[in-house]
Amino acid sequence: MARNEASTYIELAERPTRRSEGSEFLLIGTNGDEDVTVKIIYCGICHSDLHSIKDELGFSIYPVVPGHEIAGVVTQIGCKVGKFKIGDRVGVGCLIGSCRRCSNCEQDLENYCPKRINTYTIFNDGTRNYGGYSDIIVVNEHFVVHFPDNLPLDRGAPLLCAGITVYSPMKYYGLNESGQHLGVVGLGGLGHVAVKFAKAFGMKVTVISRSESKKKEAIERLGADLFLVSSDPEQMQAAMGTMDGIISTFVTPDLITSLIHLLKPHGKLIFLSATDKPVQLPLFPLLTERKLVAGSIIGGLKETQEMLDFAGEHNITSDIEVISMDYVNTAMERLARGDVRYRFVIDIANTLTV
Amino acid sequence: MARNEASTYIELAERPTRRSEGSEFLLIGTNGDEDVTVKIIYCGICHSDLHSIKDELGFSIYPVVPGHEIAGVVTQIGCKVGKFKIGDRVGVGCLIGSCRRCSNCEQDLENYCPKRINTYTIFNDGTRNYGGYSDIIVVNEHFVVHFPDNLPLDRGAPLLCAGITVYSPMKYYGLNESGQHLGVVGLGGLGHVAVKFAKAFGMKVTVISRSESKKKEAIERLGADLFLVSSDPEQMQAAMGTMDGIISTFVTPDLITSLIHLLKPHGKLIFLSATDKPVQLPLFPLLTERKLVAGSIIGGLKETQEMLDFAGEHNITSDIEVISMDYVNTAMERLARGDVRYRFVIDIANTLTV
Repeated sequence: MARNEASTYIELAERPTRRSEGSEFLLIGTNGDEDVTVKIIYCGICHSDLHSIKDELGFSIYPVVPGHEIAGVVTQIGCKVGKFKIGDRVGVGCLIGSCRRCSNCEQDLENYCPKRINTYTIFNDGTRNYGGYSDIIVVNEHFVVHFPDNLPLDRGAPLLCAGITVYSPMKYYGLNESGQHLGVVGLGGLGHVAVKFAKAFGMKVTVISRSESKKKEAIERLGADLFLVSSDPEQMQAAMGTMDGIISTFVTPDLITSLIHLLKPHGKLIFLSATDKPVQLPLFPLLTERKLVAGSIIGGLKETQEMLDFAGEHNITSDIEVISMDYVNTAMERLARGDVRYRFVIDIANTLTV
Repeated sequence: MARNEASTYIELAERPTRRSEGSEFLLIGTNGDEDVTVKIIYCGICHSDLHSIKDELGFSIYPVVPGHEIAGVVTQIGCKVGKFKIGDRVGVGCLIGSCRRCSNCEQDLENYCPKRINTYTIFNDGTRNYGGYSDIIVVNEHFVVHFPDNLPLDRGAPLLCAGITVYSPMKYYGLNESGQHLGVVGLGGLGHVAVKFAKAFGMKVTVISRSESKKKEAIERLGADLFLVSSDPEQMQAAMGTMDGIISTFVTPDLITSLIHLLKPHGKLIFLSATDKPVQLPLFPLLTERKLVAGSIIGGLKETQEMLDFAGEHNITSDIEVISMDYVNTAMERLARGDVRYRFVIDIANTLTV
């Protein structure tokens, strides 16, 4: 088992190699009849990896092996696997299990299944599974997606979390129509991909950011149409009532009323991240202009495949900085400072020594 | 002109009998080519009438003549009127004008037109129009709806505000499907009609109220399936995650988090009234269970007609207390105390002396 000896945050452990007694889910380590073993080639670093390894959400149990933006190649399949063959280029995202029977699962919304199993998870019995900062992962084929031929594994890997996180709400809330005007709050790992999907949908896109610093990049390189500095009252005033929807990739509580005012009547403010404390929400504009405030978290497997296929067709990839395994802790420190454009991706295949 | 001499709040004035110079809208008083003159038979008393006459929203200019739940009979039509003939039973609700050209108007959403004209309104030039606590009203035919033959004018009148206010969001937010479970917060003028529409849609309905006092009535007379006392933590806990949507006819800021928890995943909390101050909104449940918080206000004319037709088909009427014109101020005092089940309706035709 590979170890990152210089690790500050990350301590790897032996993977369990058994089925959990009484569990209906296969834990990683053995390849069951419906499982696919994936040799991990690349794994993206999501901000929630940082939360997990620092236990910022309060339910981490060490050792934690993060990583849920996993791109690789199938090396083994179970006898009942129908979707994959050895050698296929595949992805594993944030989920590796769900009950498969509840109303959410029946609607291909495994991401809202109350029994969903995140890719790195602690089980009630104390056993756990581990994420993609590793050489292999074994997953039920239902939770594995195909990579389109033209989608590179490195720049495609972050789409398995960041991509589906923005794509799913755009579809669900009807913010994917050509000619609509979408605001994107925050130009980070999620935001920069949201701009790309929105442009592929034929939308007009305004990036909303606290300062001018990312304006040139947003417009000239990512293809956003407009850039709005949220700290500039005149700019915000001039943009009132212009947007069909806003995707907010992070929460600035003081900005919520202003964001609602940026929306046209019937506009939609969608949060993709949350804060511990409740935010202040003005109700009048929700009534008088029939606006809504909502949220969303990742997406189901069917939609994740659809999103990857769409990304392949439209050449949508994440902008990444490829790093070696021994750079992970430095990358985490940089990520905590927001110093990445826009996603670190670990070159697992070439830099993780097994 | 009739006057209610004992009035505390309400002072009637002569109606203007001219077109406003430069205005594209006909003010009441003369019957223009596209106008219908309605002899008012009944007019409901909405809680917003009370706000207006007490200037609780800060933009009343006296004299105010309230009333936007107007049911009556056509007595005169203009030469270009196509929808109505003399003798027709008709209704006039909260709107008597809009620009007819904006994207809202084009989508039959006159209620969200920025230039909408409420039924009793002060214009910028200081002129005004007056509502339904009066003998007649003259309205462009676009803003008049037909009463279905079997819908009584008295018990149908409140549907022109209370009815459309609950019907429109139920349709827009998809909370009108048979088998869904709807929560209704508050059993007043809006809430009791929401229960009736929801039952007509084939839904399971839970009335959510602060105390047990309306339980028997809600279930035995109005046909609600369940009654939930919001001040009882055990009842609220047991009902968590059970509702597809909640229509909140008034705002109890402390209850919002609990209401969100009552929703199933993908559930919708719809506010039909607002508070001056922002409310506290927890964002996590919006993400993890893709819930939404939204609002709505009355409805467009096409949908108001649809709602009345639906009410006629399903025998949905408001529960009312018919009062004489000289009881209005007493009724207002009772309304302020919540002492009405569920709508006062003024018997204009028999008690307003012209």
